[in-house]
Amino acid sequence: MMFISVDGGATKTVAVCYSEEGIIHGMGISGSGNYRTAGVEKAGKNIREAILRAVHRADVDESEITKFSIALAGVKDSNLKNELVSSIVDKERTSRVRVLNDGEAGFECRFPGMDGIVICPGTGMVSYGRKGNIFKRVSGWGWILGDEGGAFYIAKRALQETMKIYDGRSGIKSDIPDYVKDYFQINDLKEIVNKVYTNPPEIGSIASFASIVSKLAEKEDVLATLLMEESAAEAARCITSLRESMFGVEKVHFSGYGGLFRASNIYWDKIRKIVLDQHPDMIPSEPLYGYHAVIGSIYLMLKEENMDLKFDLDSEVKSIEEQIRRISEDERERYLLMH
Amino acid sequence: MMFISVDGGATKTVAVCYSEEGIIHGMGISGSGNYRTAGVEKAGKNIREAILRAVHRADVDESEITKFSIALAGVKDSNLKNELVSSIVDKERTSRVRVLNDGEAGFECRFPGMDGIVICPGTGMVSYGRKGNIFKRVSGWGWILGDEGGAFYIAKRALQETMKIYDGRSGIKSDIPDYVKDYFQINDLKEIVNKVYTNPPEIGSIASFASIVSKLAEKEDVLATLLMEESAAEAARCITSLRESMFGVEKVHFSGYGGLFRASNIYWDKIRKIVLDQHPDMIPSEPLYGYHAVIGSIYLMLKEENMDLKFDLDSEVKSIEEQIRRISEDERERYLLMH
Repeated sequence: MMFISVDGGATKTVAVCYSEEGIIHGMGISGSGNYRTAGVEKAGKNIREAILRAVHRADVDESEITKFSIALAGVKDSNLKNELVSSIVDKERTSRVRVLNDGEAGFECRFPGMDGIVICPGTGMVSYGRKGNIFKRVSGWGWILGDEGGAFYIAKRALQETMKIYDGRSGIKSDIPDYVKDYFQINDLKEIVNKVYTNPPEIGSIASFASIVSKLAEKEDVLATLLMEESAAEAARCITSLRESMFGVEKVHFSGYGGLFRASNIYWDKIRKIVLDQHPDMIPSEPLYGYHAVIGSIYLMLKEENMDLKFDLDSEVKSIEEQIRRISEDERERYLLMH
Repeated sequence: MMFISVDGGATKTVAVCYSEEGIIHGMGISGSGNYRTAGVEKAGKNIREAILRAVHRADVDESEITKFSIALAGVKDSNLKNELVSSIVDKERTSRVRVLNDGEAGFECRFPGMDGIVICPGTGMVSYGRKGNIFKRVSGWGWILGDEGGAFYIAKRALQETMKIYDGRSGIKSDIPDYVKDYFQINDLKEIVNKVYTNPPEIGSIASFASIVSKLAEKEDVLATLLMEESAAEAARCITSLRESMFGVEKVHFSGYGGLFRASNIYWDKIRKIVLDQHPDMIPSEPLYGYHAVIGSIYLMLKEENMDLKFDLDSEVKSIEEQIRRISEDERERYLLMH
């Protein structure tokens, strides 16, 4: 038996083709699988593309796929869901598709079948807690209303502080303005307005600058460090508020996944420290990266097929890492911003 | 002799028709006169509408107008400037139009012909300093990159803190969430996403919520007070950085104009206090409101016609206030949000 699981995010879609033992045979990556960001047609096309790449690399025929699980944001609107599914697989296969909520599926990538708290600083920021049958979301209000501590938030704050330095409104010295010029390919910082005020704004492309801020914080740039501390405090607040509202004095596991954790260790170190300073009895687990979220979708599929006893998180992570090395350089650079 | 002066802002355009003594005979208000926000065609149409209302209320014929001064943002691009002017007045009158930079014109509404520092918290936030022939701008980087302390900034921060309260990420109690529901006409705070994530975002309509925050701060709402203090610190930073970079130890006047100063006294009180705590020798002057900016455009016109000796700032302010009472209730409510 072969399965396909997909995680469709705001900036990238990850599809994997795997056997009933959870062994991944092929992976495909493409652009946004979020119909809110990309529109239904484009999101469907991207998800389809990721699936085709995954089956191709796994060297199987799509007709051999027993079932598909697709984790998507905002799937409540069932009309759009059906429309989207129809654009992803042939008509005779739509009954084989299980659409999952991206938050719940993502949670399983870190704590499959367990209680805990998971924080997800991707382009945006959202966090989830699970205790028995209760599943609660905190944050995730998007790039204007919230997402504090996510990549777009960090990049935007870096740009704002850069303009303060440019104006003489800041007492801080930093290398960030030089990196802003380089990243946005401008000679003078005032040209940044031409890069940022596009319609619609290129949230994903601005957000990617957060990795540079994170790396500069590791080099002890003062402003970068302040920004990562500000963001870690916001991220930690998601975790501690879930702990307090859901778990009371119970011990609870916490972890996270997100692209920012790949840039450097500094973000997770800061988040963990703030959380443990406030709640020393909480139990941290190392975070995963953004593309690992698809593991949650795999777990839920195997569970549904009563094959979850074969599921082993560490093996899945290793398996994904191996596949990441097998995908084309173009896919890695375009969608995962890995060089 | 009769003149027309116009101030074309991001959310409203104010036109006045006045005599060589500076006595205002008619005023007209309309929507955005900023071609970046509204597009050249719509901006031209709005400016034209404000002018027609002003000449109508002054009971003069447009052919009697000796000259027009029009203060606009981003007038550097001369092609667009000519196109805009052609859409505002008849071909034979274009030579009578003088286009001014909105920042320099606005500065003159507070310190006509003088040195000083003026801060302008409208929808956005920008500030200017003048010393002799040197004119310097600080802040004003727009709603993503900056504008800290402007109305959109305050409203956005209020919404972000509201979602933190909703999530349980905030320890603060506040009446702001109730006012958010009321202002945005929603039953549950999570519906706010449907109001805010429009394309393009309705910056002006979100920004207007800042007046409510300012009024709640006067009633000592804790969160509203914190937000006004945060914003006042940002606003004061514009003033003190201009003082330090332009004036050194010299005494210097500072003031401001902006719609937020009409909502309550609390914002200016806080800004003034922070500035004077840092630089006790600076000299504050009471701020004006947003629609007063057109006075700068009047001053520059009369100066060009060598009639500026007749210009008296206090009389102009009184004259504008009188005209504001004469415009239609509809114009007041739609463009100045005054009820």
